[in-house]
Amino acid sequence: MALKSFITVHPDSHFPIQNLPYGAFKTQHSTALPRLAVAIGDYVLDLSELAKAGLFNGPLLTGSDCFLQHSLNKFLAMGRPAWKEARETLQMLLSSTEPALRDNTELRHKALVPMSKVEMVLPMEIGDYTDFFSSMHHAKNCGTIFVGPQTPISPNWFHLPIAYHGRASSIVISGTDIIRPRGQGHPTGNSPPYFGPSLKLDFELEMAAVVGPGNELGKAIDVNEAADHIFGVVLMNDWSARDIQGWEYVPLGPFLGKSFGTTISPWIVTLDALEPFACDAPKQDPPPLPYLAEKISKNYDIALEVQIKPSGQKDSSVVTRSNLKNLYWTLTQQLAHHTINGCNLRPGDLLGTGTISGPEPNSLGCLLELTWNGQKALSLKGTSRKYLEDGDEVIFTGCCKGDGYNVGFGTCAGKVVPPRD
Amino acid sequence: MALKSFITVHPDSHFPIQNLPYGAFKTQHSTALPRLAVAIGDYVLDLSELAKAGLFNGPLLTGSDCFLQHSLNKFLAMGRPAWKEARETLQMLLSSTEPALRDNTELRHKALVPMSKVEMVLPMEIGDYTDFFSSMHHAKNCGTIFVGPQTPISPNWFHLPIAYHGRASSIVISGTDIIRPRGQGHPTGNSPPYFGPSLKLDFELEMAAVVGPGNELGKAIDVNEAADHIFGVVLMNDWSARDIQGWEYVPLGPFLGKSFGTTISPWIVTLDALEPFACDAPKQDPPPLPYLAEKISKNYDIALEVQIKPSGQKDSSVVTRSNLKNLYWTLTQQLAHHTINGCNLRPGDLLGTGTISGPEPNSLGCLLELTWNGQKALSLKGTSRKYLEDGDEVIFTGCCKGDGYNVGFGTCAGKVVPPRD
Repeated sequence: MALKSFITVHPDSHFPIQNLPYGAFKTQHSTALPRLAVAIGDYVLDLSELAKAGLFNGPLLTGSDCFLQHSLNKFLAMGRPAWKEARETLQMLLSSTEPALRDNTELRHKALVPMSKVEMVLPMEIGDYTDFFSSMHHAKNCGTIFVGPQTPISPNWFHLPIAYHGRASSIVISGTDIIRPRGQGHPTGNSPPYFGPSLKLDFELEMAAVVGPGNELGKAIDVNEAADHIFGVVLMNDWSARDIQGWEYVPLGPFLGKSFGTTISPWIVTLDALEPFACDAPKQDPPPLPYLAEKISKNYDIALEVQIKPSGQKDSSVVTRSNLKNLYWTLTQQLAHHTINGCNLRPGDLLGTGTISGPEPNSLGCLLELTWNGQKALSLKGTSRKYLEDGDEVIFTGCCKGDGYNVGFGTCAGKVVPPRD
Repeated sequence: MALKSFITVHPDSHFPIQNLPYGAFKTQHSTALPRLAVAIGDYVLDLSELAKAGLFNGPLLTGSDCFLQHSLNKFLAMGRPAWKEARETLQMLLSSTEPALRDNTELRHKALVPMSKVEMVLPMEIGDYTDFFSSMHHAKNCGTIFVGPQTPISPNWFHLPIAYHGRASSIVISGTDIIRPRGQGHPTGNSPPYFGPSLKLDFELEMAAVVGPGNELGKAIDVNEAADHIFGVVLMNDWSARDIQGWEYVPLGPFLGKSFGTTISPWIVTLDALEPFACDAPKQDPPPLPYLAEKISKNYDIALEVQIKPSGQKDSSVVTRSNLKNLYWTLTQQLAHHTINGCNLRPGDLLGTGTISGPEPNSLGCLLELTWNGQKALSLKGTSRKYLEDGDEVIFTGCCKGDGYNVGFGTCAGKVVPPRD
C-alpha cells in the first residue's frame, strides 16, 4: 500500500511523503535565526519543534541537537544511518495512520508552517564549492564553439571527471536577484579590452550534490562507498558571463565569469528519496581506471526544465528540457575522483555536475549552446534572446515521476538586474 | 628614537616590537580552543589575557570580545581603524617605558608564553581561497615549458591579474606533513593514463593576503581603497603535483594537482608593519584599465628564500632567493579585480600571489622552473633533486630588513610523506 500522509498533498505537488526534502527557513520579516525543515505538500515542517517534542526517538537521534542547529551541517556530518533514521521517523509521523503529530493540534500548529509564510535560506554552510563538467554533449558543444570542430573534447575528458574550484561566497538561494557583472571582454584589433556590464550573460542548467561526512586530508573515499557521502541533490544555476569567461579562462580556468552568483534551490532532495528513480549510467569507453570503476554505476532519472520570463511578460517560455541521466560521469565518480589525491571534503560542500545538456537541440543546458554563442536567436513568446537581458527571470524545475506521485525539487529561480553604481 | 620593548629581542629575530604579527596558538597537548596572539621575540603574547585585563582601552576595542574569539575573523571584519588601534595599544604595552604589563608579574606570566611551548594553528577560518598568477617571470617560464617559446604568455595576462579559485579545506599550518597525492598523469602512446603517487611533486613560493572587511555581493571595491581590505600577509607554499596538473588542467584549470595541501605560515604580518618596506610596483605596459589604475602602486620589499632539507641530512640547502617586489600585479590590484564583477570577499579569505619568480636563474619560485620540468637536476648538499622526494622538508622564510631590526614572517615549512594505504 502506498504511503499516505494525513496532510493533503495535491497529486502534482513536488513534496509528497515520499520526498521530504530538507531546507532551512525563516518566518517572513523575522530576525530570528533560520530553522530546519522538510517540505510536505504546501507546508514546511519545522524539525526543531519535533525535536523539542522528543519525537526523534530512534537510537541515533534521541537527544541530538542536530535539528536545533541553524544549518544542516551537523546532521550532514552524522551520515547515512542518521539520515535513514530521520526519514523513517518523519514518514511515520506524517503518515495518515499515526496519531502523534496528526492528533496533537498544538504541535501541528507550531510545526507545520504554510510555505507562503516563510522565506527559505541557504540550508548549509558551504565550505567549498566544486563544479564538474560531466555532460559529454555540453563538453562537445563548448569545445566546438571555442576550440573548433576537429578536437572539441580534450583527450583527458574521457579519463577523468574534469572540474574546477568555484566560489563559495557568492552561492545564493533561489529568488535572489542576480546583479549583472561588470568585467573585461576580448579586445577587438589593437583596442584595449572591452570593459563594462557583461554582454553575454547566460544560465547553466546544473544539479549539485551536497556532501555528507566527507574525509580527512590524505584519505581518499572509495568510489563504491561514495554514495554514503552524498546526502542529497539540489538544482543549481551556475550563471556565467561568457564574454568575461572567454577572455580570462586561459590558462587557469573560469574565475570572474562565474563568481558573481550561483543559485541553488532551497530543498535538498535526499538520495534515499531519489533511489526509486535510479537508472543505469552510460557505458564508459575507454573503461575508467580502477579507482573510478563502480560495481554499480547509477544515474537518476530527473526531468529538468528551464523557463525564461522576460520582464513585464505574463508568461514564461520553456527554453530547454534535459535530464540528470545525460551525465557521463556519475555523482559518485565525481566525489571519488575529488578525493583521490587526498583532498578533504567537509559536510555541506557542494559538488556541481556542470551543465547538463542532452543530445537533442532542445535539450541543451545553456544559451551558449542553444544560440550557438549568440549566432541564432532563441524565440520566446513575442520576443527573442541571444543572451539574458535585465529583468529576465530564469526558472529551473526538476522532477521525478513516480507511480501517482512526484519527487520534485520545486524551483531554482533568479532575476537578472543591472549592475549597481 | 627607535621603539624598544622591555622584552629582550635578539637583533636577528623576525619579531621585534616593530612587527607584532598575529596568530593563533594552543599550549602543547592542550585540548582547549585556540587563543589569539601576537609574536614578540621568542614569546607569543596572549591577547585574550590582555583583553580580560582591560588593557585594550581605546575607543574601538574597549569592551570588544574580538580577542576572546578562537580565530581572527571578527577582528579582521572590524577594519583598519581597529587594527591601527590594536597596534598602537600593543606597541605601547610592550615598550620599555610603559609599566602596565612590564611591572605586572602575574599578568606577564599569564600572557607571555614561550614559543617553544605552543603549537600554532590556522589563525582564521578561510571561507574562500583564490590564487593569482602575478609574476611575469613565472608566467613566461611556465608558458615556455608547457606551450612553447613563441607565445609563452597569453594575451590576457597583461590586461588582468589572472587567477583561479583554490581549495580552502586543505589549507594547513606550517609544520603539517604533506601527503604525496595520488592521481592520473599523461598517458604514453595508446596506454591508459599513469595512475599512482605523483612523480613530479613541487613547491610554489608564494605569499598570500588575508582579507579584512570585504564587500557585499554586487558591490566592487575601488582599487584605491583596496588596501583597507587587506589585513596582512603570510608566506604560502602552494604544493603542486605537476604530472597531475599537466594532465587535468585543460580546459578548466588546476584542480587535484593543487588541492591536496597548501601550507601557510602561522604569523600574519600586517600591512602597517610592512609599510616602511613599501616600494614602487613595476611600470605596467599596456597601462591597466581605469578600474585597475592605482594612484599609488606599491609592492613590498620582502626577501624570500626556499630551503630543502632531505630526510636524514643535517643541513638544508638554499634552492632559491626571490622577493615579493617581483610581482607585476600588486596585491591591491588583485583584490580590486576579484570584486569588479561583484564577487563578495569575506573576512579571512586568502588571496595567493601565485609563484613569485624573479628574473635571475637563482630566483625562480618552483622546481618546475628551477629544473626546467625535470630536465636538469638541482644540486643539494651531497645529493640532487628534479622533483621532491619523500622525507624532503621544504622551508620558506621571508624577511624585511629595517635599520637595526627585521620585520619577518618566520618560516613556512612542510615535509613530504608517502601516500597512506
